[in-house]
Amino acid sequence: MSKEDVGITVSKNDDFSEWYTQVVLKAKLADYAPVKGLIVLRPDGFSIWESLQRTFDAKFAKNGIRNGFLPVLIPESLLGKEQKHFAGFNPEVFWVTHSGTNEIGDRLALRPTSETLAYTLYSKWIQSWRDLPLKINFWNTALRAEIKATKPFLRTSEFLWQEGHTVHITQEEAEKEVMKILEIYKNTVEEELAIPVTTGKKSEKEKFVGAVYTTTMESIMPDGKALQMGTSHFLGQNFSKPFEVKFADKDNVEHFAWQTSWGVSWRLIGAMIMTHGDDQGLVLPPKVAPIQIVIVPIYRNDEGRDKVIPKVEEIQNKLTEMNFRVHVDDRTGMSPGYKFNDWEMKGVPIRIELGPKDIEKESIVVAKRYNSEKINLGFSEIGKISEILDQIQGLMLEKAREESKKNTKEISDYSEFKSKIEDGGFFKAPWCGELKCEEKVKEETGADIRVIPFGSEDTSKKCICCPEQSTCVPIFARGY
Amino acid sequence: MSKEDVGITVSKNDDFSEWYTQVVLKAKLADYAPVKGLIVLRPDGFSIWESLQRTFDAKFAKNGIRNGFLPVLIPESLLGKEQKHFAGFNPEVFWVTHSGTNEIGDRLALRPTSETLAYTLYSKWIQSWRDLPLKINFWNTALRAEIKATKPFLRTSEFLWQEGHTVHITQEEAEKEVMKILEIYKNTVEEELAIPVTTGKKSEKEKFVGAVYTTTMESIMPDGKALQMGTSHFLGQNFSKPFEVKFADKDNVEHFAWQTSWGVSWRLIGAMIMTHGDDQGLVLPPKVAPIQIVIVPIYRNDEGRDKVIPKVEEIQNKLTEMNFRVHVDDRTGMSPGYKFNDWEMKGVPIRIELGPKDIEKESIVVAKRYNSEKINLGFSEIGKISEILDQIQGLMLEKAREESKKNTKEISDYSEFKSKIEDGGFFKAPWCGELKCEEKVKEETGADIRVIPFGSEDTSKKCICCPEQSTCVPIFARGY
Repeated sequence: MSKEDVGITVSKNDDFSEWYTQVVLKAKLADYAPVKGLIVLRPDGFSIWESLQRTFDAKFAKNGIRNGFLPVLIPESLLGKEQKHFAGFNPEVFWVTHSGTNEIGDRLALRPTSETLAYTLYSKWIQSWRDLPLKINFWNTALRAEIKATKPFLRTSEFLWQEGHTVHITQEEAEKEVMKILEIYKNTVEEELAIPVTTGKKSEKEKFVGAVYTTTMESIMPDGKALQMGTSHFLGQNFSKPFEVKFADKDNVEHFAWQTSWGVSWRLIGAMIMTHGDDQGLVLPPKVAPIQIVIVPIYRNDEGRDKVIPKVEEIQNKLTEMNFRVHVDDRTGMSPGYKFNDWEMKGVPIRIELGPKDIEKESIVVAKRYNSEKINLGFSEIGKISEILDQIQGLMLEKAREESKKNTKEISDYSEFKSKIEDGGFFKAPWCGELKCEEKVKEETGADIRVIPFGSEDTSKKCICCPEQSTCVPIFARGY
Repeated sequence: MSKEDVGITVSKNDDFSEWYTQVVLKAKLADYAPVKGLIVLRPDGFSIWESLQRTFDAKFAKNGIRNGFLPVLIPESLLGKEQKHFAGFNPEVFWVTHSGTNEIGDRLALRPTSETLAYTLYSKWIQSWRDLPLKINFWNTALRAEIKATKPFLRTSEFLWQEGHTVHITQEEAEKEVMKILEIYKNTVEEELAIPVTTGKKSEKEKFVGAVYTTTMESIMPDGKALQMGTSHFLGQNFSKPFEVKFADKDNVEHFAWQTSWGVSWRLIGAMIMTHGDDQGLVLPPKVAPIQIVIVPIYRNDEGRDKVIPKVEEIQNKLTEMNFRVHVDDRTGMSPGYKFNDWEMKGVPIRIELGPKDIEKESIVVAKRYNSEKINLGFSEIGKISEILDQIQGLMLEKAREESKKNTKEISDYSEFKSKIEDGGFFKAPWCGELKCEEKVKEETGADIRVIPFGSEDTSKKCICCPEQSTCVPIFARGY
């Protein structure tokens, strides 16, 4: 046994942060790189990211979005072209000053985000209305120096993400795109990762630097902290003007274009770990699990093995033909119990146990990871595994939705707010819309406005923090 | 029309270098980034890379190789751990010295290649024979400062590639892996990109810094220059010793492991452009073409359009159902002739023309990009498009193989060698195996030993450059 094979040693409830780190490392999803703030993904971790990529790619393609590639280096002068944007990112930028022994004149930034680079190119590529809409997505990494303690998938100085950048003829079309993307994000996260999200707008204070407005999806984690799951920005003409992203319309008059940008990162994987994991380790939603079904043959000697293995292989082939990702754990010198624990820690949704007695009964034992339930399935019923996996996927979302509801409170009294915020959770509280109240709440409670949910406009209440009438009921929470 | 829509203005024979750049830019595969040495990929260019990724991923997976992620930053101290390796890359390294306004103590290198980083982690991940073989591939970019003029896909300071890193219990298994990968490289390049390659070993002088030996595949380009298409290295224990990549064997004794590393980059796309392109522009092998079939409806007025479009859509649907990538060019205000030129420049393998006369004859016109042939196909014969695309793919490889043969000469006289090298090409010439002769040839002719083909051992001849007996017959050429 290698060192890493020892199980999770703390409970999720007792020490959430340590529990999380142990799950990430021991389930072999990721590991720390030699540079502070950086992590590497091991195959089981990267495989989840690849699964999300495939899903997003298919949905993006249906929406007319194609992929491209941008380099990681951006000249300082270019990054500074949109002033507010630059000021927002500047403190976190990694700077390249030398190549070999040569000093570089205009320092090069490692991409904190690619708006400035993409739009410099877009302004060359777009001349007329015929070139629009232009919709390109980039799967790459962003680099933002992180000074706090590294937290795999949640707080790292380089992170995997996708950044989409679209250009449109009209404001209306651009705003529609912003919402279409947010909808793709929402249904992918809910359907693939089984995590419920709340969508809406960010406040002025919390919006993306350079955007007209930012739409967001937010989730509440089991430790009561909020996590931003993805954002889709309406950039208006804030970038098209300084970067001269212009097009000649049918009447040959030049106009500045309307733009959007949007992104999700590997923090989605962090959210999945936190939402579904338990004291035994990872619990993977079937749709993204690198291995969906593990088969553990059970036998005591060669005779038993000869009896069991042919049937194991038959079932493996059947399930593989059904396009499931199946693995047979026939490692020698390990007890079935050890193997069960190992695969439970790794979060594999279904374990099939098959021993000589099962052969006699012509049935298999199916153990479900997410609720520890065990059932028997006759050899002729193997096809039902498909439904069982679908059920698991659906029930995991349902369970997470209930947890999320339990963790969401409506509140209108500020002193109650201040005392309850300690327990964590989403707090729906009326707000006057003024920055000073938002800042006061942040200062006194550590809670931000995470999202102003769509349809939460409400002028009938008093602001949580001042005597003014409310304009809306945002969700406040302490966040990651 | 945008500026970029003008066709290729030089002939491939007259000015190969300018022709190449025009094809890359005008077919919208790539563009220059604002930083010297860097390029961006537009969707048509990146799509070819994605196609190669899918093919390699499937073949890697069959061979038990999975994907992972490594960060782009490597500490200087780590990069320097294998001395020869470090010396080889040091002059080309980009250095990060600051994050925000803070100076970084141990400077950070932008990954020129990831051996040092990967093996630091591997040494943690591998404890026993149970953990082996470990085979991980990384799709990322490498950064090596390029001082010469930028050449998209061929000479850039950041390039897309994959780097695979495997660890094995025995030398034999590692050496087999090296060859298995080279074989995957060769059949993918030949079958997908229709480019013939010659495989063999690099000389000691040309091998990867840090490897025991390097295997390579090389191709000859139409301008007579050789291009290295991919390399697969046997690292022996050269890295496992300094990085302590060790495992406890079944008898519990610790051993240093045996390692391989291997990579191909987007220069494969450059090779594809050079090999197949012509004076009209790009010629894409069907298997990797983002659009395999473009349908151009031909009509003069609304009446004609109403007649033609339903049939066009029927054919489009049929071909899409057959899983081909089909595009209908129904742009208004452009002549069919303009559209034909446009899609020819972009290299689309098959163009289908369909006008009112074709409807009457119940047939379509099929124009093949690679040889300009036009044929008629009856409406009931649309299914034949599948065979035609296969034929095109095969004939493109055949044609390239003939060109490559024409460009390969056997030569044994040094003065003849020196005069003929000016015309370019592969030169098979006997060699004594000594560095001094290799260096003399390089100095006097500019030609390197590109590859010592497998099976080219030959002690019956005189060295091209000295009176000694030959050991083998390598391929000499001037290279990219």
